[in-house]
Amino acid sequence: MTPALEKLALHFASLPAIGRKSAVRLAYHVLEMNEEEVRAFAESLLEVKRATRLCSVCQCFSETEVCRFCEDPERDGGVIMCVEDNRALEAIEALHEYRGRYHVLHGVLSPMDGIGPEQLKIKELLSRLDGTVREVIIATNPSVEGEATAMYLGKLLKPLGVRVTRLAYGLPVGGTLEYADNTTLLRAIEGRTEV
Amino acid sequence: MTPALEKLALHFASLPAIGRKSAVRLAYHVLEMNEEEVRAFAESLLEVKRATRLCSVCQCFSETEVCRFCEDPERDGGVIMCVEDNRALEAIEALHEYRGRYHVLHGVLSPMDGIGPEQLKIKELLSRLDGTVREVIIATNPSVEGEATAMYLGKLLKPLGVRVTRLAYGLPVGGTLEYADNTTLLRAIEGRTEV
Repeated sequence: MTPALEKLALHFASLPAIGRKSAVRLAYHVLEMNEEEVRAFAESLLEVKRATRLCSVCQCFSETEVCRFCEDPERDGGVIMCVEDNRALEAIEALHEYRGRYHVLHGVLSPMDGIGPEQLKIKELLSRLDGTVREVIIATNPSVEGEATAMYLGKLLKPLGVRVTRLAYGLPVGGTLEYADNTTLLRAIEGRTEV
Repeated sequence: MTPALEKLALHFASLPAIGRKSAVRLAYHVLEMNEEEVRAFAESLLEVKRATRLCSVCQCFSETEVCRFCEDPERDGGVIMCVEDNRALEAIEALHEYRGRYHVLHGVLSPMDGIGPEQLKIKELLSRLDGTVREVIIATNPSVEGEATAMYLGKLLKPLGVRVTRLAYGLPVGGTLEYADNTTLLRAIEGRTEV
């Protein structure tokens, strides 16, 4: 490979879930793109860093000081759903069902990686609990760290007189008991509801 | 997603083997990279287009007028291995066994996609057959198009008094008969050798 191709392949390989072989393939693909497309791609990389900031209220990625969710008067400011990152926010938003507001933590507690409460947007969450917030829905991922973060937030927020809830664990719709893992099955039994 | 993120995700999604979900993930990853890294990545994209040309002899990607394979006096100029693209060349080169020269076709015959002999670097190959070339090894991929291209080149080159060979088909080393596909097994029987 030429030095320029090798360098570009290294850049691609440094991205998540792109291995060496894919990175080489992508570098060659760029070589086959027309110059205008490559220029637009390069510009877009720089633009994303330049244009994006955190919403000063909910901390989601935004191009404005306050994001469209926080500015939307139609949304219920009394409910805040707390997510790990913007991708989780988008997954919820794609349902077109939730009409409350969000708070993005930008991570989960992970002492092994040196991530404690100070590294997350928790004090920004606390500053939003001005008495108008009735409920905080904790929607961290169903992982060990997500669970620990939910527990931590629960202990922190409940004394402040706000209702703290957590997304339900259980069988994924369309799945079968046979293929559910033990932990999920156990949680589904524990969380069983009246029919 | 913000407009800048959405745009970057579209750029990533236009690359081969990157779907919508991965593209979104990559766009967010770029947001988390430091500015210096992003700038270097963008610069590298532009650089690869700017710095890369085709070797005027073998047509492989090169940053110089004549590539290092064609300039290397240690390599045997009497043998030319004909490959589809630079990636195939690299796979052969990684063996550290082949000491002849190369010729990159930049594709294979594919009438359905409008790719005929004129679209490939075939006349550049012919112009290299100046009497010093003893053998052309056709190393196109073992696909229908690769095979058709090999047939075509064989018919074209043999009358010129040059030996034309093709990489062997057969069982992959370490494989088992049981899992070999029918075509491969058939080719392995046809191409059986004396022990």
